[in-house]
Amino acid sequence: MAHAANTRFPQIGIDAEGPRREFDSMGEIEVPGEKYWGAQTQRSLHHFAIGGDLMPKEVCHAYGIVKKAAALVNAEAGRLDDDTLQAISQAAEETISGALDAHFPLYVWQTGSGTQTNMNVNEVISNRAIQLLGGELGSQKPVAPNDHVNMSQSSNDSFPTAMHIATLDMLDRRLLPELEKLAALIETKAEQWMDVAKIGRTHLEDAVPLSVGQEWSGWAAQLRAVMETVAASRAGLYQLALGGTAVGTGLNAPEGFSEAVAAKIAELTGKSFVTAPNKFAALGGLDAMVQASSALRGVAVVLLKIANDMRWLASGPRCGLGELRLPENEPGSSIMPGKVNPTQCEAMIMICTQVIGLDAAVGMAGSQGNLQLNVMRPLIIYNVLQSIRILADGCGTFRQFSAEGTEIDRSQIAAHLENSLMLVTALSPEIGYQAAAHIAEDAHKRGVTLREAALASGKIDAETYDRVIVPENMIGKGVAGA
Amino acid sequence: MAHAANTRFPQIGIDAEGPRREFDSMGEIEVPGEKYWGAQTQRSLHHFAIGGDLMPKEVCHAYGIVKKAAALVNAEAGRLDDDTLQAISQAAEETISGALDAHFPLYVWQTGSGTQTNMNVNEVISNRAIQLLGGELGSQKPVAPNDHVNMSQSSNDSFPTAMHIATLDMLDRRLLPELEKLAALIETKAEQWMDVAKIGRTHLEDAVPLSVGQEWSGWAAQLRAVMETVAASRAGLYQLALGGTAVGTGLNAPEGFSEAVAAKIAELTGKSFVTAPNKFAALGGLDAMVQASSALRGVAVVLLKIANDMRWLASGPRCGLGELRLPENEPGSSIMPGKVNPTQCEAMIMICTQVIGLDAAVGMAGSQGNLQLNVMRPLIIYNVLQSIRILADGCGTFRQFSAEGTEIDRSQIAAHLENSLMLVTALSPEIGYQAAAHIAEDAHKRGVTLREAALASGKIDAETYDRVIVPENMIGKGVAGA
Amino acid sequence: MAHAANTRFPQIGIDAEGPRREFDSMGEIEVPGEKYWGAQTQRSLHHFAIGGDLMPKEVCHAYGIVKKAAALVNAEAGRLDDDTLQAISQAAEETISGALDAHFPLYVWQTGSGTQTNMNVNEVISNRAIQLLGGELGSQKPVAPNDHVNMSQSSNDSFPTAMHIATLDMLDRRLLPELEKLAALIETKAEQWMDVAKIGRTHLEDAVPLSVGQEWSGWAAQLRAVMETVAASRAGLYQLALGGTAVGTGLNAPEGFSEAVAAKIAELTGKSFVTAPNKFAALGGLDAMVQASSALRGVAVVLLKIANDMRWLASGPRCGLGELRLPENEPGSSIMPGKVNPTQCEAMIMICTQVIGLDAAVGMAGSQGNLQLNVMRPLIIYNVLQSIRILADGCGTFRQFSAEGTEIDRSQIAAHLENSLMLVTALSPEIGYQAAAHIAEDAHKRGVTLREAALASGKIDAETYDRVIVPENMIGKGVAGA
Amino acid sequence: MAHAANTRFPQIGIDAEGPRREFDSMGEIEVPGEKYWGAQTQRSLHHFAIGGDLMPKEVCHAYGIVKKAAALVNAEAGRLDDDTLQAISQAAEETISGALDAHFPLYVWQTGSGTQTNMNVNEVISNRAIQLLGGELGSQKPVAPNDHVNMSQSSNDSFPTAMHIATLDMLDRRLLPELEKLAALIETKAEQWMDVAKIGRTHLEDAVPLSVGQEWSGWAAQLRAVMETVAASRAGLYQLALGGTAVGTGLNAPEGFSEAVAAKIAELTGKSFVTAPNKFAALGGLDAMVQASSALRGVAVVLLKIANDMRWLASGPRCGLGELRLPENEPGSSIMPGKVNPTQCEAMIMICTQVIGLDAAVGMAGSQGNLQLNVMRPLIIYNVLQSIRILADGCGTFRQFSAEGTEIDRSQIAAHLENSLMLVTALSPEIGYQAAAHIAEDAHKRGVTLREAALASGKIDAETYDRVIVPENMIGKGVAGA
Repeated sequence: MAHAANTRFPQIGIDAEGPRREFDSMGEIEVPGEKYWGAQTQRSLHHFAIGGDLMPKEVCHAYGIVKKAAALVNAEAGRLDDDTLQAISQAAEETISGALDAHFPLYVWQTGSGTQTNMNVNEVISNRAIQLLGGELGSQKPVAPNDHVNMSQSSNDSFPTAMHIATLDMLDRRLLPELEKLAALIETKAEQWMDVAKIGRTHLEDAVPLSVGQEWSGWAAQLRAVMETVAASRAGLYQLALGGTAVGTGLNAPEGFSEAVAAKIAELTGKSFVTAPNKFAALGGLDAMVQASSALRGVAVVLLKIANDMRWLASGPRCGLGELRLPENEPGSSIMPGKVNPTQCEAMIMICTQVIGLDAAVGMAGSQGNLQLNVMRPLIIYNVLQSIRILADGCGTFRQFSAEGTEIDRSQIAAHLENSLMLVTALSPEIGYQAAAHIAEDAHKRGVTLREAALASGKIDAETYDRVIVPENMIGKGVAGA
Repeated sequence: MAHAANTRFPQIGIDAEGPRREFDSMGEIEVPGEKYWGAQTQRSLHHFAIGGDLMPKEVCHAYGIVKKAAALVNAEAGRLDDDTLQAISQAAEETISGALDAHFPLYVWQTGSGTQTNMNVNEVISNRAIQLLGGELGSQKPVAPNDHVNMSQSSNDSFPTAMHIATLDMLDRRLLPELEKLAALIETKAEQWMDVAKIGRTHLEDAVPLSVGQEWSGWAAQLRAVMETVAASRAGLYQLALGGTAVGTGLNAPEGFSEAVAAKIAELTGKSFVTAPNKFAALGGLDAMVQASSALRGVAVVLLKIANDMRWLASGPRCGLGELRLPENEPGSSIMPGKVNPTQCEAMIMICTQVIGLDAAVGMAGSQGNLQLNVMRPLIIYNVLQSIRILADGCGTFRQFSAEGTEIDRSQIAAHLENSLMLVTALSPEIGYQAAAHIAEDAHKRGVTLREAALASGKIDAETYDRVIVPENMIGKGVAGA
Repeated sequence: MAHAANTRFPQIGIDAEGPRREFDSMGEIEVPGEKYWGAQTQRSLHHFAIGGDLMPKEVCHAYGIVKKAAALVNAEAGRLDDDTLQAISQAAEETISGALDAHFPLYVWQTGSGTQTNMNVNEVISNRAIQLLGGELGSQKPVAPNDHVNMSQSSNDSFPTAMHIATLDMLDRRLLPELEKLAALIETKAEQWMDVAKIGRTHLEDAVPLSVGQEWSGWAAQLRAVMETVAASRAGLYQLALGGTAVGTGLNAPEGFSEAVAAKIAELTGKSFVTAPNKFAALGGLDAMVQASSALRGVAVVLLKIANDMRWLASGPRCGLGELRLPENEPGSSIMPGKVNPTQCEAMIMICTQVIGLDAAVGMAGSQGNLQLNVMRPLIIYNVLQSIRILADGCGTFRQFSAEGTEIDRSQIAAHLENSLMLVTALSPEIGYQAAAHIAEDAHKRGVTLREAALASGKIDAETYDRVIVPENMIGKGVAGA
Repeated sequence: MAHAANTRFPQIGIDAEGPRREFDSMGEIEVPGEKYWGAQTQRSLHHFAIGGDLMPKEVCHAYGIVKKAAALVNAEAGRLDDDTLQAISQAAEETISGALDAHFPLYVWQTGSGTQTNMNVNEVISNRAIQLLGGELGSQKPVAPNDHVNMSQSSNDSFPTAMHIATLDMLDRRLLPELEKLAALIETKAEQWMDVAKIGRTHLEDAVPLSVGQEWSGWAAQLRAVMETVAASRAGLYQLALGGTAVGTGLNAPEGFSEAVAAKIAELTGKSFVTAPNKFAALGGLDAMVQASSALRGVAVVLLKIANDMRWLASGPRCGLGELRLPENEPGSSIMPGKVNPTQCEAMIMICTQVIGLDAAVGMAGSQGNLQLNVMRPLIIYNVLQSIRILADGCGTFRQFSAEGTEIDRSQIAAHLENSLMLVTALSPEIGYQAAAHIAEDAHKRGVTLREAALASGKIDAETYDRVIVPENMIGKGVAGA
């Protein structure tokens, strides 16, 4: 979402010493002179100094798009003059680019509507626009935070709009590309090892064979499926609340604003945004966000399984399954010399567990709207963006530092395959399930090979046995089963 | 899924006294003589007598479809003779119809693969088929549970197949129709009250007006959106694991079995089933079920909000919001005479909360697959079907006994609208946000009407005030905002 | 909680054909003639036919204690005559004993206060008492459900009282004894194998040795710790809401009722019940239940870990860790002959996951009280009792059919121990961490034994090596570490 | 936990340009010259750059205590010389004080054992000690990270030790004092308004009266109860894993180390730390942390209810319940002038919901240990400390900016009380439940006062009515009910 700052305008920054007085409807208050923010931002900093979690910058960037789009539509409707439009536009672009990030200091745990962050953006853009137009900071002239920057908008419709924009951007720019790279890598490995027969395991117990490549292909297929779910969750996110204003009726916004501003946002972002068909649903619920969070949970569920499988298959090196060899990135133990651990898998498993927990909070929050508003928005956007961020980054390090360098231990794989009793399954069609079961049980109890037990059973001759029990023939073709 | 039992065959039922001996690969065991089940069912009853939760009958019914479809495909491939096919088919149809329900006694908390339920079905169909063919119960001749009824199948691929069939059936037959009826009812109410202006509420605080119909339309729109998500979750459920057999390779199933059996199931059910493209994913993961559970959570999130809104709007009758009047179905209190409570809303809220909890278990369970198998299947199908069942039934009673008979209290609605200060918002475009704010604050502090405070402010004259402050004009048109 | 029914009284049962008319403040309604319940039960059955989950019978039994205790206290205060007391007492005892279970048909998903179940109990006891006194069923004379059976009570205070009684009974009678048996068994096994050295595993990777007994002792210690948490959660459950009546003030209950009735319940149950010090907290919150649910989650967390460990240690038999041998209870696979799976572990893991999900619903429900009442009570008691039930039963089968018969594979354990490289840790104090690390890495890379690599390093001589590297010396003494 | 830095030693800080070479068992690597950290920290920064969440500094501070205590015990046992002890002690104190915070840069999502953070601390203390002793940074001489700073320890036992220390410190220093202040404030308010009668509400519907003070007392009592649960969760946290070293056996730690080091930590912190009785449980599980997290959830459940109640009671100002007036801290709306919202309540509700979600992740993580280690530690400590932090801070702002300044609206409270029909309950003992119910229903239907309807019923005369229906008499005495 990076936009180049326009250098025709005065540089960003306030050359001031000491505090500046700003006002809102409750009166005056001092703010740090070097910051663009105004009275309401300052009040929020005072009242909501809770923990260390800040409103994600991505929300502020997305808000820049909202403010620019609204200004353009208002100007086209003759409600903003050209100078004001230009100044707001420039300040909004600077917001989008991240150049004003230092002026968005608010905490996540604030008003549930996100009003304080909306006002933070309004105030910063207002003061920056005033500066661009040569006015006096804090005067709200000629560009006022509420009357001009927030024109035709409410926090109630603009904040969920910014949530959708930020979420889509992060899904498209961060998560989906990382998932794509990881899935592609796993597919490459699957291809490479498609013919290496290995023992299968169900219930953690030895089962019939499959190939290493088939095993990897399953992971990739699971990933591909949840990537589709994530992609499908975009449908709801494309619907924007903007134009509903305070309660969904669109009061104080001109007719046609909803559609025009959604089209403008689509134009600015290159994404298929449209106006939400029902603004009362768009303000009172956050269902598209809840659905996106569910999709992220789906990703976590799959990645947790994959990471778990990989670390168990790599367990050992001598007293575990030992079929995979993960890259050795760092000493694994402060006390056991030479120990190497599946640390990328562990980080991934923790990330996935965290995403599942964050999603639990999102689901509960989504249910707690009342009447015309859901006031759990900061929590929801914080958790969703956090989940995207750690999943995306986690996929990156997991791929780069673990999956990519993973090798197979062919001798261990071959030894397991040879020892297994479950090859007996291929005898069932020849001699029936019960007879086959007795052979396997006999081999297990006497500690002999399956072949020995089979021949000893008198149910099958050596020739047939050797024709039927060929692991390489038991893994079938491809990945689609029989 | 009801199929008429074919009356050419011997009636269902075993005329026997005392126990019958059955066997499996571990040996012989006694089962109740009047039951069709065999040794493995009996062992499971003994080893897993845990709580009172039984495997949902819908799973067994769906399994009937699986067994019939497999038999048909195996017969077409010349692997089953016609008599066996006819007998298995008949027994499978009786399973599907529910006529054999008394023979599926197993608990949910059993083996994680669902093998015991698969064997229960195999054993019951085997013995019933033996009976139909005039054989001896328990002899496994001429129809053996493993070799014939389970032919070309494993629990590992057939159980998730039955899960998908049962879930889709319950979604299509139970949940979606109830959601449709509820949404339609709410839409009817919305239409009916579309012009009744009322006070809006954001942050629970008085806000600008909307209409009663708009408020109801928001609920319906939220419902419609999650209904789409539920419908979309069918895509993954249409993909069937059958044909993967034990680990995904399809060992012991004939080539082409996957596609043929999925087509047969599609034919038997009239639903768009296809074979899953990757059987390793289909056995090792249960992602389509996790996604369906997420969609159910989405429904719960919306219904919880709706029920909460309705009970708050109906709160009172004299000391609450009092805008809605819910039907009075029963005395509300054992101690307070004449009290009536929003009990359907409360039941709905509990149901939704339960669905959220059951989904949490499903999500965790979905992540816990290992290698070629996820052994949390009974939990997952139990919770998903339970969620569908209580959501569907809850929607039914909520609609029938609460939403349908809900009326509005026009005088209370009018009184609230008249008293509110937030109509001041409409003055902002005329006199600016700050001046408008001071008028509202003045009215609030002095306890006077907004009109009095506005005129006292000197910022606006009576004529303008009366032109601008018309609640009916402030609710806009339709539901799409400005 | 079993009480012998008093046989001086008429037998339980109504000799009637067709329906009977019953009334409440809303008018008359027909009920099945053979049932004791009255109008409000019948209304609830009609309005809340949701799913198949019924109010747990344990709640009704506990309610019998509440009703008997209240009647005794009211009679002592001269508010109930002796005949009425005797009749109510007798009917209450029959309720407690389970003899009237068929007359408590209500669903869980009903009014959130549990009023309908309270009225169900009031109505059944009223009619049974009328019968005992020779009156006319449905006449509410001489014993009326509200005025006599519910005297000095509200659902609002009696239902949470019954919740606490039922939960404590189930904890004490079902869960804690099963946990005790399981912990004791594990301790016995630990003792038995305390000197069998085996390889340790951290991060799933080979680590320094411990003994089999130490490993088992850790499981037992984890269990013992959460048993204490469960036991500690009783403190809050001992505090009873009864005496708060409708909103906590105790309106319509005589002075001193709270303390007297808590003492009576303590006397009837033999448990340390007291009256809750603040009745507004006791009605508006359900915090002791939430805490008990947390304690159950703690049990689930531990049991899940134990079951997971056991099944991994038993994985194989030939291609897994293979250190434990679980009992073989049933054939494991419908397709793979001779396969045996850790099914009790799987059932336990599903149970634990379910308990975690049910607790999530309880936590959310606990937070959703409003003002003088939390109306999520049926959900909370249902989930907590369900968790207790499946944990208790699951512990029973897990112990009896899996843990008890578990054996160790000494040769596999010895082989692992001998192969491991992590014995190198014992060299650190001799030659430093870095040098030791290089030896382990060298052994790993060259595939030689640790001893070979150590001697080849020149850092240590054979004598020292053989003195230091003695696994049996590396497992320390006891279970408390260094 | 602040300790004054000893100024006899060289100032903290490295006067260096460019990178410095550090080594570990895997070889050399460059680190920033101005940082004390070594090779393993640098490797972790490279491999785990995931999101923005860092290991909480409180863990590093607690680790300082661990390192100092271990050094003291090792020195007493003659394993460390005095110079090394002094240098390590000094560096550890600087760690504890926060003076070295800039040298602990690691991410949360790292190895699940916390080894990388342990090594970060070992490396920083080692280099700082080397500097204090005049050695060469990166030489590991005369103080090596593994051999000296980590002496007698493993990450596996030291990390959970640091978790317990940090959690207890944050509970005692941050959370419990804030809860105490909030509870005390609510109690003060309760006392102040103990005699102000108001309408009660159950099921959101009008009920019998209570006093404002009683309502507030319930909130305080709920808080007090969960404070006790938090306090009780300390019992498990006092038990320290240190002395178990790598797998619980205590290998490489001298005999008696466990008890001695726990005593030393108790001395350094002034808290009742003891050594955990079973080290295998202490390494393989994290049950005391899971229990602490449950206790935090219990706090969240209560605070959510309180904040919800307060905002509903304050809803309006004209179209809601309107019984409370919360302080007006900031303009509430960007579009609705003069609007004031319950923003502190909203922040609190989001915080509580987040804590519930973080606890869900902790519960799941707690269950995922394998064999000798649970590798979800960074997640668990991160979430628990985060929950403590936002609950503590949130309680502070909620109290200071909302609860403290909350006032009651006596006229609104009186109006509600007068209008309510539920005063009828007091008539039940006089005229029976059914007759009273009909009076209330009649008043409701005809829209008349309860008195009018009562007298019209002919069931009661005016004198009796006026004697019985006195709200002030209906609220009882105190908070313990009847």
